[in-house]
Amino acid sequence: MNIEDFIRDIPDFPKEGIVFKDITPLLLSPEALKETTSLLLKMVGNSKIDKVIGMESRGFFFATLLARELDAGFIPVRKPNKLPAKTISESYGLEYGSDILEIHEDAINEGDKILIHDDVLATGGTAEAVCKMVQRLGGEIIQCNFLIELTFLKGADKLKGYNLQSLIKY
Amino acid sequence: MNIEDFIRDIPDFPKEGIVFKDITPLLLSPEALKETTSLLLKMVGNSKIDKVIGMESRGFFFATLLARELDAGFIPVRKPNKLPAKTISESYGLEYGSDILEIHEDAINEGDKILIHDDVLATGGTAEAVCKMVQRLGGEIIQCNFLIELTFLKGADKLKGYNLQSLIKY
Repeated sequence: MNIEDFIRDIPDFPKEGIVFKDITPLLLSPEALKETTSLLLKMVGNSKIDKVIGMESRGFFFATLLARELDAGFIPVRKPNKLPAKTISESYGLEYGSDILEIHEDAINEGDKILIHDDVLATGGTAEAVCKMVQRLGGEIIQCNFLIELTFLKGADKLKGYNLQSLIKY
Repeated sequence: MNIEDFIRDIPDFPKEGIVFKDITPLLLSPEALKETTSLLLKMVGNSKIDKVIGMESRGFFFATLLARELDAGFIPVRKPNKLPAKTISESYGLEYGSDILEIHEDAINEGDKILIHDDVLATGGTAEAVCKMVQRLGGEIIQCNFLIELTFLKGADKLKGYNLQSLIKY
């Protein structure tokens, strides 16, 4: 099975000139969902993971599956004012302006081994912001794990020094 | 294990006077995550399920896990303009005003057996909107499956005629 066959290009989404990689056909296929989870797990290898972080919202899909398979906990990172308890936050740059991500302050204990997962690594801004928050809370980042890496956006440059793994590169 | 021990009350969130049921401690515990998935699956029983629908965003957590365990596909239902391909939509009433949910038109085939999952059943507006969309696309709703039901909000009244199951009732 080639999981790339289950990722479709949507031209001009979310805005003109951008070709969006739509993973919903992959989620819709039981076989592709299983195979993708298994391939993402293979990238993690035998590293012990305490907690898996997923980024709102598409990062949630496989981050919860990875957490269960690794017998780890799951931590959502969310946009501002979505998490109900005490949070810490980091802002990150967008093409125009900036945005903010939050994580619950009590989600990570000193020394926790953390797997960060998102569906797509684009410019790397969100992943970098998450790495900063994990480190502020004393977590140890074992891997930054992505389903798709858009290499032409050079997100890897922002994640130097981390163990970066991407299943599919465009 | 009592999974209610992993759900905490956050007073005055998202606004004053509301006590929010926060499931993030439950997601954070590998044991509670496993046990909750298993209990949600038990509510489904032996029914054949082709696809599991999860509602943005907190419904995604367990809907993906249920899909994998049931060897089914996963379908996200999202807020407007988040899904990239052709969608159908339904609006639903809020306390003041209304909101809209969307689903990909090609996500459901005639006769597909559908499990609808969300973390919380409150007034039932979103679940009712999802049921309408599933039926418009020809799907058969096997169960509306919730982690938490806030019974005092009478969401069950909007889901009469469906197989409604909730793990925890407040």
